[in-house]
Amino acid sequence: MNYRMVFYIMGQILKVLAFFMLLPIVVGLIYHEPHVFTSFGVPFIITFLVGVLLTFRKPKNNSVFSMEGFVSVAASWIVMSAIGALPFVISHEIPHYIDALFETVSGFTTTGSTILVDIEKMSRACLFWRAFTHWLGGMGVLMFVLAIMSSNDSRTMHMMRAECAGPDVGRLVSKSSFSARILYGIYIGLTALEVIFLLFGGMPVFDALTNAFSSAGTGGFAIWGDSIAHYNSVYIEMVIAVFIILFGVNFNLYYYLIIRKFSLVYKNEELRVYLGVIIAATAAITMNIASQYRNVAEALRRAFFMVASTITSTGFATADTDQWPRFSQTLLVLLMFIGACAGSTGGGMKVARILIIIKTGIKELKYIVSPRAVATVKMDGKPVEKAVVRGAGNYLIIFIMLMCFSLLLLSFDKYSIEENLSAVITCMNNIGFGLGRFGTAGNFSGLSPFSKIVLCFDMLLGRLEIYPLIMLFSFRRTG
Amino acid sequence: MNYRMVFYIMGQILKVLAFFMLLPIVVGLIYHEPHVFTSFGVPFIITFLVGVLLTFRKPKNNSVFSMEGFVSVAASWIVMSAIGALPFVISHEIPHYIDALFETVSGFTTTGSTILVDIEKMSRACLFWRAFTHWLGGMGVLMFVLAIMSSNDSRTMHMMRAECAGPDVGRLVSKSSFSARILYGIYIGLTALEVIFLLFGGMPVFDALTNAFSSAGTGGFAIWGDSIAHYNSVYIEMVIAVFIILFGVNFNLYYYLIIRKFSLVYKNEELRVYLGVIIAATAAITMNIASQYRNVAEALRRAFFMVASTITSTGFATADTDQWPRFSQTLLVLLMFIGACAGSTGGGMKVARILIIIKTGIKELKYIVSPRAVATVKMDGKPVEKAVVRGAGNYLIIFIMLMCFSLLLLSFDKYSIEENLSAVITCMNNIGFGLGRFGTAGNFSGLSPFSKIVLCFDMLLGRLEIYPLIMLFSFRRTG
Repeated sequence: MNYRMVFYIMGQILKVLAFFMLLPIVVGLIYHEPHVFTSFGVPFIITFLVGVLLTFRKPKNNSVFSMEGFVSVAASWIVMSAIGALPFVISHEIPHYIDALFETVSGFTTTGSTILVDIEKMSRACLFWRAFTHWLGGMGVLMFVLAIMSSNDSRTMHMMRAECAGPDVGRLVSKSSFSARILYGIYIGLTALEVIFLLFGGMPVFDALTNAFSSAGTGGFAIWGDSIAHYNSVYIEMVIAVFIILFGVNFNLYYYLIIRKFSLVYKNEELRVYLGVIIAATAAITMNIASQYRNVAEALRRAFFMVASTITSTGFATADTDQWPRFSQTLLVLLMFIGACAGSTGGGMKVARILIIIKTGIKELKYIVSPRAVATVKMDGKPVEKAVVRGAGNYLIIFIMLMCFSLLLLSFDKYSIEENLSAVITCMNNIGFGLGRFGTAGNFSGLSPFSKIVLCFDMLLGRLEIYPLIMLFSFRRTG
Repeated sequence: MNYRMVFYIMGQILKVLAFFMLLPIVVGLIYHEPHVFTSFGVPFIITFLVGVLLTFRKPKNNSVFSMEGFVSVAASWIVMSAIGALPFVISHEIPHYIDALFETVSGFTTTGSTILVDIEKMSRACLFWRAFTHWLGGMGVLMFVLAIMSSNDSRTMHMMRAECAGPDVGRLVSKSSFSARILYGIYIGLTALEVIFLLFGGMPVFDALTNAFSSAGTGGFAIWGDSIAHYNSVYIEMVIAVFIILFGVNFNLYYYLIIRKFSLVYKNEELRVYLGVIIAATAAITMNIASQYRNVAEALRRAFFMVASTITSTGFATADTDQWPRFSQTLLVLLMFIGACAGSTGGGMKVARILIIIKTGIKELKYIVSPRAVATVKMDGKPVEKAVVRGAGNYLIIFIMLMCFSLLLLSFDKYSIEENLSAVITCMNNIGFGLGRFGTAGNFSGLSPFSKIVLCFDMLLGRLEIYPLIMLFSFRRTG
């Protein structure tokens, strides 16, 4: 493996991260929080110096293959989390490092699970940084592409494969850094649009920014204890719900819209299923919870928001789902597994992968009933490559194996199997809330440090879609 | 499809079933329970007459292919359960038909989940019949083979594929009805041996017979409220634990022992892993629960029995596992999924299938780390056919899809998601006990009739390894 190039890439990323650490300092200055000079200034200096050291000399051999791509993605994500946790510890707002690490991993992986018992006690600078980690995490795909701008198409492809979610990366990404900048632009543009819509609804600037960051990364960190329910505004809830759904769409489709290839968007099967599932689940839950609310409109409002928040793996809450009937709860747990579209900032197994898996299952059943019938798995009307079909099935297998292993490790803690399972599911799918103690009204503070580290790995495994992390720890020495 | 032949096969099976219904009448006579003449006599007459009617004329076209095999297996299992439930209802010992059906499906599928709140109130005849359904269910494989004795090798193979568990049916079964009789003999021999061992430990004759029936089918129906713990005898517990482990071994291996092909047994990878998992899980649980018992020996005794009972999908209990630490509980839940060996009377996913799935996962990881490495999935040192590997993966996919669907249907009932999930897991894997209200100390009586029917289907799906049941309900009209 080309270690020099891996370190070089990490150095580039750390320099970018250092720059972004200046933003909370600005926030601190505005809100008269003098602690920011030590709590963000010190990490800024460390990050910048390490970044400069690692990028001091560009390696002559700048080839980046699959392996280097995967490993640098995984290592960067871990180092970014380790450094990103420092401000919380230095400011004493999260005194224990493991807690701060959990919160930061949860941020960068856009999970949104929190160990904070009282969010509203935090300083503005830390709240800003917390939400901003979501935005950076969501931008991860593009960041990495820009960091290795020099590399050619197929190499960029390797990077994208590590980070860009799901089995279908699409054609766009193979057009290298130019396209990456466009994606970048779409991401920033959509975020800005959400900020404007939120401001229009009367939301304070600070709230609009942080909520937009959390939405863009489909993360779910809120700045109020009662999450989005705090604003008690139908308008704000609908704006956020619509935007997280938009951030859960494959970004390639926006590119297609820009280059006016509308038919490609219209024909996209994943998008149709994604929207179809949202509508069906909202309808089912609305009927199921209607009796708990004043009227059907109120139930629809809660159901739509929670469905959007769950399927996109955001984790914002406007209802205590632990009070909902079991059917709705079960449906939400299933939505967690489905997740958003491939190539979006959302988590979960991804709609495309679930679609391929279900189609494979149906194909197998058809085969058993009549072995002579030739059935191929199709997406968007075209047959899916066998390697992709096999990959989707194997991903599920490895996902379940890791889930069982995590569940076993968490069982040493004091919670019920149900709660442990929900914690593993919510972390591996990067959602943010589970059931019972880890539900929308709870938090992850009661877990042991060991359990928190296990869940940190689960969040990273989910976000990086397993493989890069496995590679990093396979310690394979080649070249 | 050759419907006439399907009905003919079912007729043969019903005649056999009718004959077996005479046994509880004998038991009733011995224990002076006069109700047996109506409660078992009437169903006997009905079953026998229907059987005679269906087999009155042998169809000229006696070809039995995959489709006919699968469909007659699935239909027979359902009809047998529907008829087998009658004695419970007629004797008023289980007044509601749905409850009696649940109990009988649980019996024939060798699940062992019960809706009975007070088992000890039952008559001897009904207790005998209840345990005997397990024995018949376990014998199912052989029964079907004998029922279509006239068919040739490849057709028998189709039958066996439907019933003989797991991806590896082995070479034995292709040797047609002669081998079936040998398997039959082994099954009866092992059962008789267990009865002798139990009698030797001072167990009453009725108890020894019923417990041996439940063990042989790896079912788990006990005749006492506190299951096997009732006897409070280390000897009896060890005899039962060893025998259920033996009934969980691929029966082909006993055939190999008889024909003195010891090396085939010694080299069998599935057997090694099966025994290895039992030893490892027993050791881990013993350490984990040691502090809850007087000494390590006591903990080892409980752990070994419960591990054997769980992995073989029997469901006998000598401990209230709800009182055990979470780690042990979680480990037991994972053992439920693994299940016994393919080609045994045990349930679950089967060790061979789990092995193939795990090896596929590892292969995929190796492939991702270095795409040039050629890795094949091997069993017993030989490469596994691609179709088998794909089949195992797809089985997992379909299993999970059906599990999610059942979970959604059960969510309309009043229990927690954890309890519902454990009920679905225990039924689909044919274990017999779950968690919480469905734990070793609980029962399934509180469920709604709808939920009970859902779980009946889950038990049948698990026992028939999904495909035959799907075929029966696919209503495909060919030929």
